[in-house]
Amino acid sequence: MKRQKFELLILGSSSASPTSERNPSAQFLNIAERYFLIDCGEATQIQIRKNKAKLQAIDHIFISHLHGDHFFGLPGLLSSMHLLGRKNRINIYAPEKLKTILNLIFEASDTYLNFEIIWHFTTNDKLNLLFEDDKIFVYSFPLKHRIFCTGFLFKEKELPRNIDKYKLDKYKISIADIHKLKNGHDVVNENGELIKNNLVTINPLPPRSYAYCSDTIYTETILEYIKNVNLLYHESTFLDDKIDRAKKTFHSTAKNAAQIAKLANVEKLLLGHFSARYGNLNLFIEEASSIFNNCELATDGKVFSLS
Amino acid sequence: MKRQKFELLILGSSSASPTSERNPSAQFLNIAERYFLIDCGEATQIQIRKNKAKLQAIDHIFISHLHGDHFFGLPGLLSSMHLLGRKNRINIYAPEKLKTILNLIFEASDTYLNFEIIWHFTTNDKLNLLFEDDKIFVYSFPLKHRIFCTGFLFKEKELPRNIDKYKLDKYKISIADIHKLKNGHDVVNENGELIKNNLVTINPLPPRSYAYCSDTIYTETILEYIKNVNLLYHESTFLDDKIDRAKKTFHSTAKNAAQIAKLANVEKLLLGHFSARYGNLNLFIEEASSIFNNCELATDGKVFSLS
Repeated sequence: MKRQKFELLILGSSSASPTSERNPSAQFLNIAERYFLIDCGEATQIQIRKNKAKLQAIDHIFISHLHGDHFFGLPGLLSSMHLLGRKNRINIYAPEKLKTILNLIFEASDTYLNFEIIWHFTTNDKLNLLFEDDKIFVYSFPLKHRIFCTGFLFKEKELPRNIDKYKLDKYKISIADIHKLKNGHDVVNENGELIKNNLVTINPLPPRSYAYCSDTIYTETILEYIKNVNLLYHESTFLDDKIDRAKKTFHSTAKNAAQIAKLANVEKLLLGHFSARYGNLNLFIEEASSIFNNCELATDGKVFSLS
Repeated sequence: MKRQKFELLILGSSSASPTSERNPSAQFLNIAERYFLIDCGEATQIQIRKNKAKLQAIDHIFISHLHGDHFFGLPGLLSSMHLLGRKNRINIYAPEKLKTILNLIFEASDTYLNFEIIWHFTTNDKLNLLFEDDKIFVYSFPLKHRIFCTGFLFKEKELPRNIDKYKLDKYKISIADIHKLKNGHDVVNENGELIKNNLVTINPLPPRSYAYCSDTIYTETILEYIKNVNLLYHESTFLDDKIDRAKKTFHSTAKNAAQIAKLANVEKLLLGHFSARYGNLNLFIEEASSIFNNCELATDGKVFSLS
């Protein structure tokens, strides 16, 4: 059975200052044709175009915090959506101050967007449900950075149980009861016998999950939010030789990220948010993989699909 | 004699929405090692890096108006200057509201730049001198757009007169009088005779000039400010088949730009600010050159040197 898509496209992997190869933070996530933009550093709209992602398909934008490398691309992205004819409203999940900033910018340019922005202000006290539909949950959770900053957790809902169609006949189960079976209930068949759910259904594939930790110092307080995720993005601005600088600026090293991935028992770790001082990023993989083996560089243009 | 540099690098040539080949408006101008940034659309700092221009050498930034495609790159550019260790103050010439916007953005990210911004608020009533040193004048002048918008005029000062050294001996002129001669005065020689300036000096090369007209509807009111410039950049968002749209949005066509270039008797015309709808830009040259012959596309990465 073909699973619904769960695909992450990296649009930017640089920390504060971009390099000629690396743009500031932005990621494009497609889960079952729901399109999420996670952070929106400068030139995100250009990266979206270069990577042939669907600009207007984005209905939800998540901004982790208000350091410029995570949102300076947003006014331009929204302007282009407007100029290219967008009418559908868009949801922005972000610190409250962002609304004031955008309003001032659009007022100065005498711009009135042709679509509505639905604001959802983030808080960083605990796990908070930001979005839910029939297939997905999205939560924010607190990170530990110099300023207010949240991570985001994207999680599929449990899939309905799979029905073994041959057994429906065998146990003389009414078609009307399929819905009950899919949801895990037992049913009474046409002969009045109780049929245990697990006789006629099999387990669905487990729900997949992705956690995004944009800017944070090493902190084990996040483990409860990200444990067992299939894919973890954890910033690694520095290598371990700059651990003092990492602590001082509330950032992490590749080693820190790997330690978190290991403790959280995740399946795979993505490293990103690299300081512009580093040319050879393989050192990040070397450092992290001594602690946690399944890790990759989340560099610009890379796509990670969860199967 | 080698002249001082007068070199314009185009960083962006797109109008409101960038394309995969064209970034929004920004230009980098070097006159005699004075470095000016003219407008600063999104991703300007990335374009500066890609084109190996000197980011930290920029001491003067000119923002024509507050439509996003002309300034959305400024917060990121200033942040990067800060992060890369800038200490030297920078001059920003822009509409007053820009200061409020930048202050709010930097406040939200708890950022305190390590260098001072000297603000020079533009007005769009007439020709205004914005900057002057021993070699250059920079002026703003009013354009006619949907919102407050100015063009900029960069003009070398008159060079001192060139002295024919052989004639200094011939006319027995004291070395102490060279300064007077260079400034065009007559002098009295060692024999007490009045020596006419033009006997011993020759005309210097004429001063060069560049005018930048970012966003404007066709208007002959700008002719007095830009007449006889060596290089004129005039926006041409549209081709003539979209003249109605140009008028409605207070923009120009390639034909409009050529008409202005002709009436202003400029030496060379640069076309830019192209709408994202156009793929083949040669049509802009075709349209303009039927009216004004010496024109070029000011596309990303091109360099124009005045000799």
